[in-house]
Amino acid sequence: MKKCVLMPDSFKGTMSSMEICAIMKEKVLHFFPGCSVVEIPVADGGEGTVDCFLSAVGGEKVTVTVKGPFLEDMEAFYGVIDNGETAIVEMAACAGLPLVENCKDPKRASTYGVGQLILHAIGRGCKKIIVGLGGSCTNDGGVGMAAALGVKFFGQDGKTFIPAGGTIEQVARMDVSACLSQIAGVEIVGMCDVNNPLCGESGASAVFGPQKGATPEDVAELDRNLAHLARLMKETRGIEVQDIPGAGAAGGLGAGLVGFLDSRLQKGIDIVLDTVHFEQLLQGADVVFTGEGKIDSQSLRGKVVAGVAARAQQSGVPVVAVVGDIGDGVEPIFENGVNAIVSINSVAVPFEKARLRSKRDLAFTFENILRLWKLA
Amino acid sequence: MKKCVLMPDSFKGTMSSMEICAIMKEKVLHFFPGCSVVEIPVADGGEGTVDCFLSAVGGEKVTVTVKGPFLEDMEAFYGVIDNGETAIVEMAACAGLPLVENCKDPKRASTYGVGQLILHAIGRGCKKIIVGLGGSCTNDGGVGMAAALGVKFFGQDGKTFIPAGGTIEQVARMDVSACLSQIAGVEIVGMCDVNNPLCGESGASAVFGPQKGATPEDVAELDRNLAHLARLMKETRGIEVQDIPGAGAAGGLGAGLVGFLDSRLQKGIDIVLDTVHFEQLLQGADVVFTGEGKIDSQSLRGKVVAGVAARAQQSGVPVVAVVGDIGDGVEPIFENGVNAIVSINSVAVPFEKARLRSKRDLAFTFENILRLWKLA
Repeated sequence: MKKCVLMPDSFKGTMSSMEICAIMKEKVLHFFPGCSVVEIPVADGGEGTVDCFLSAVGGEKVTVTVKGPFLEDMEAFYGVIDNGETAIVEMAACAGLPLVENCKDPKRASTYGVGQLILHAIGRGCKKIIVGLGGSCTNDGGVGMAAALGVKFFGQDGKTFIPAGGTIEQVARMDVSACLSQIAGVEIVGMCDVNNPLCGESGASAVFGPQKGATPEDVAELDRNLAHLARLMKETRGIEVQDIPGAGAAGGLGAGLVGFLDSRLQKGIDIVLDTVHFEQLLQGADVVFTGEGKIDSQSLRGKVVAGVAARAQQSGVPVVAVVGDIGDGVEPIFENGVNAIVSINSVAVPFEKARLRSKRDLAFTFENILRLWKLA
Repeated sequence: MKKCVLMPDSFKGTMSSMEICAIMKEKVLHFFPGCSVVEIPVADGGEGTVDCFLSAVGGEKVTVTVKGPFLEDMEAFYGVIDNGETAIVEMAACAGLPLVENCKDPKRASTYGVGQLILHAIGRGCKKIIVGLGGSCTNDGGVGMAAALGVKFFGQDGKTFIPAGGTIEQVARMDVSACLSQIAGVEIVGMCDVNNPLCGESGASAVFGPQKGATPEDVAELDRNLAHLARLMKETRGIEVQDIPGAGAAGGLGAGLVGFLDSRLQKGIDIVLDTVHFEQLLQGADVVFTGEGKIDSQSLRGKVVAGVAARAQQSGVPVVAVVGDIGDGVEPIFENGVNAIVSINSVAVPFEKARLRSKRDLAFTFENILRLWKLA
């Protein structure tokens, strides 16, 4: 093995994609000293997204003072790659759930700082901004971000104010013109791996609200407010956000990106593949090692292994998937660029126990994949 | 892959070694059509031992009418291999637990038929007889077998009788001369994978008696009787059987083989490796696929994978172990001829659930080992 590409998803609840890359890289270099190892930990938009990109393609981490969830000043960051052309903004950097551990309040928490990070990147000359959606403490549909970018929200009294998740219903109308000028000529892409719509049973408030501290009454109120925001977007901009898959990501920030900033939402893996210039990385590679926490019949659609495999197959590079669980009905994936699948499960124990030994099991399993490779 | 050798142990409680071989063979021929596949399902002495040998090296299954556990006439069998030189007798064929499902009685059950099978094989000209110990319904220390082979057991009254597990204590003395004449020039080997001594806490009666229907009182009585048999063997033949590992196998038939027939006891894997002429089979093989239900630090000693690997290493043929669970501390086995270990566990579930899907998991895992092989 002279060159390999490591491109795993995280194993949810057990290992980050960067941790997986580190374990795999160590084993590759042990069994194939001198092998060129390309590490592309796949980001999903959540916490760690900026580090994944910087680790994959190199770049700069820019630190900026912006507003935190409750509009307090805080130090946040974003990544700049591609010779300054592209910024990676991780919304969790200034609106993440860990920031409000003991004071969760989804009716008040704001994405204002996210808008400031975007603005800073634009000011720095970035022409493309990837906004990672995930791990949020907010439920504001991106109105905070929009306000930071110049959107004016007017109440019934005609005065402007900065709304939050709990006060969106007070917005009578909005003016996005200043914001659109700010972002002119800049492509903004939302990155998320969830498909939730903005409102309703599967929406942002109902599904993710409770973990952010919303009571059942709060959920109902927040959901009504996001529906109100969707109506405003329809009236003001003619954009229907409610049913876009991912509109409900990050407390409705998905909808905010689409409705305020004309963004499109994309899966993490698709963004990563393009951003890292995957086909160039594949040149001369003997194999791509990818993986995800569970591979199953759903994995053919939009998940990391399938995404990596489809593109690698076009380039004629084989793919080995190292996974947690193997569900039923995965066989079609062998026709779609995956050459082999190996589970890291090494003892028959339930997930609660397996997760505690996942790093060790991954290391052992991957080592033995390399041992087989060496042998054959 | 032009030639491979399949040599798995059974996965206790889930799959027999013959079932494992069948699954592996199908997959090899699917991915490497035309590959020469040598199947050696490893026997452990218990039920299925004769079929394992016949499947491995070919031969004849000889059917004979002998005495069953309660001295009733029944049809049993043994295998003849090596151009008639070697017989494989499976004690379970006429003294196995499934034969007495609803009438377990370890005080009465006899190994008499085992002696008849041995006698028949000697009569047929076999010069070596391998007696598989395992799966017995008896606890007679082999006195039934001995009686069939000509050993005379005398009571206090000086009259001969055929003792059973519950009546050994009535034996005052014994005369083995006729038996020794019968077996002159014939090598008899006991095959067993347990190390239990004849008597005591780890002995035949205490450990295996209850599953054969012995009450706690029966266990105590049976244990005393086997201790009496050990004393008789010491007095009559000068042989100490009590602490020989495996003496307690198959209701003490291990001790009976040693004490009456001058046998040695050997692990299944060692007997199989010699009997199938392992080194000849290895010629031209690209790889040996072996396996066992659980590989752990104990596996370095006397278990199937280690046994196969040690010999294959001498011949320079790589070994891949396909196993159920992988315990801690197995790494030294990589220095002892095992090139790679892969677990069949494919989902994080406890053994009660994993066992129900073991065939499917083995098939999938083994397929992916072959896929990796093809790839590399």
